[in-house]
Amino acid sequence: MASVDGEKVVSNKQVILRDYVSGFPKESDMYVTTGTVKLKVPQGSNALLVKNLYLSCDPYMCNLLRPTASTWVTYVAPFKPGSPIIGHGVAKVLDSAHPDFKKGDLVWGMTGWEEYSLITETDILFKIQHTDVPLSYYTGILGMPGMSAYAGFYEVCSPKKGEYVFISAASGAVGQLVGQFAKLLGCFVVGSAGSKEKVDLLKNKFGFDEAFNYKEEPDLDAALKRYFPEGIDIYFENVGGKTLDAVLLNMRIHGRIAACGMISQYNLDEPEGVKNLMTLIYKRVYMQGFVVSDYYHLYPKFLETVLPYIKEEKIVYLEDIAEGLESGPAALVGLFSGRNVGKRLVVVARE
Amino acid sequence: MASVDGEKVVSNKQVILRDYVSGFPKESDMYVTTGTVKLKVPQGSNALLVKNLYLSCDPYMCNLLRPTASTWVTYVAPFKPGSPIIGHGVAKVLDSAHPDFKKGDLVWGMTGWEEYSLITETDILFKIQHTDVPLSYYTGILGMPGMSAYAGFYEVCSPKKGEYVFISAASGAVGQLVGQFAKLLGCFVVGSAGSKEKVDLLKNKFGFDEAFNYKEEPDLDAALKRYFPEGIDIYFENVGGKTLDAVLLNMRIHGRIAACGMISQYNLDEPEGVKNLMTLIYKRVYMQGFVVSDYYHLYPKFLETVLPYIKEEKIVYLEDIAEGLESGPAALVGLFSGRNVGKRLVVVARE
Repeated sequence: MASVDGEKVVSNKQVILRDYVSGFPKESDMYVTTGTVKLKVPQGSNALLVKNLYLSCDPYMCNLLRPTASTWVTYVAPFKPGSPIIGHGVAKVLDSAHPDFKKGDLVWGMTGWEEYSLITETDILFKIQHTDVPLSYYTGILGMPGMSAYAGFYEVCSPKKGEYVFISAASGAVGQLVGQFAKLLGCFVVGSAGSKEKVDLLKNKFGFDEAFNYKEEPDLDAALKRYFPEGIDIYFENVGGKTLDAVLLNMRIHGRIAACGMISQYNLDEPEGVKNLMTLIYKRVYMQGFVVSDYYHLYPKFLETVLPYIKEEKIVYLEDIAEGLESGPAALVGLFSGRNVGKRLVVVARE
Repeated sequence: MASVDGEKVVSNKQVILRDYVSGFPKESDMYVTTGTVKLKVPQGSNALLVKNLYLSCDPYMCNLLRPTASTWVTYVAPFKPGSPIIGHGVAKVLDSAHPDFKKGDLVWGMTGWEEYSLITETDILFKIQHTDVPLSYYTGILGMPGMSAYAGFYEVCSPKKGEYVFISAASGAVGQLVGQFAKLLGCFVVGSAGSKEKVDLLKNKFGFDEAFNYKEEPDLDAALKRYFPEGIDIYFENVGGKTLDAVLLNMRIHGRIAACGMISQYNLDEPEGVKNLMTLIYKRVYMQGFVVSDYYHLYPKFLETVLPYIKEEKIVYLEDIAEGLESGPAALVGLFSGRNVGKRLVVVARE
């Protein structure tokens, strides 16, 4: 450990974006390097200096790797080539000039893919108040994906007991929770996923009524008709494209679609065309795209709901953990080929 | 006039569907024939016998000409080959066994394309209380299209003063009203239509801020960016396909799309694919398909709003009138090639 002006300077491993990505992201689009960092916030700033513990791999991040991101992504800053990847994470405050945070606080929110980050934007940064659950949960069930599931299901879908709910990418961080929320409410819940292992998890661990492997269904419309002979009241949309088109044919009157993501489309040069939008009219369906950051005012209410569910084991939660910052690029890229089983995160340090 | 069992029997001209239609409807898909009708409701029924005065030509009717209609249209009965076309119209009650209607009443609602109809389904049938406006208005501004504009704009779009509003098929029965409602609320309103004549009408008669001919715009995205440099808050969707795709690229954050119809898609063997649905998520846009029949409980409130607008000439209204039942098939088919200018209707009789 060196010292500059009497302040500690430590080495800082970082995952850097090499250049903007076109097509499918590869591990080599990022590289790991080591710089240095002063463990002190600049004088006169409003910043925090944090030690990153857990970093979250989330599907939306793929879009931020692209040069066009800044033209349409309005809710987070796009990545910059030559700079660390940015994402959601759990961190410990080492120094703070911000009135809401002090040394020793645990926080979750937007941080860098590096060992230590200077955080200057604190719009999406929450102090962790409950530490009687694994800290890593704040990258998932108790963090952004959990809030996405909660806001998307309860706020966007207006669900009612007994309704028919379909969830795509259902074993992912958001999908597994939406399904369990829906089951707790008394809905009939079916999920789709991309492997036998995931389908088994949905049925046997997460308590979905049914689940299927979309890769083994040549006719998605027929598959949905098999599982939903009465049609679908609520579709929680994570994938887009052909799945959305098939779902549209199976929506019930006054059905609701919460569009959380469209991961099947992120790496295509041109998105697939969706042809069955007329059913929105025939069936009086609404489709609402949403972004979790619009709902963070509900975070305290969310915790009141979900913390007891976790403690009483009414909700189960599955993590897919990659060890060490060096594993970050592979962990992130693997998300887009569906290699993760459960919520994927990277452990930088455990305390 | 003949007599059967002492009851009047009169000749009854009818527009009959020859057979289900595939592709673009043609005049020859229908034919006009003359039968007879007893001017008395059957004993023990709950029916009405009406004399039809004005019949409405509406875009949705095109879909009912198809054999597949019954599989997805849930809000009106599909047409039957060999039977008269069914649609909205204005009629006079000649005989009634229904407690809510009596001889001499003027009504609007679902009736047959014929001189006289026996109406047994009265779900969509309203007694006309205000006759100090032209009766034909109840096929348009004061009937189903008027209610569509009202419910779609005020109920679905949650409009606010100063918002940017785009309307496709803007000179049609619904579009011309939506634009005027939006102007009365203080919105900035742009419409698209398919001819110079219609564009002139939008700007000079209906008071739209701007209007353009979509057929003269090789790049709809560029056209929309020209008229909406700040983006679109509300899109009133009447056409679907390429227009919807271009609009999606121009929606503002928390924008709203009311999907009323998608006339550009009705006569295609396969609908066009819409590619830019990801913007629903990025921009947190709400897209709601709606059917006017879900909103008829608002009809009294609607009349309270719109009747004064008509009488005070705050709203102007343009009809495109075809004379005589024989002109019905051409009038209906012409709707799908955009030959109508304003609300198209067929006069069967004036009293």
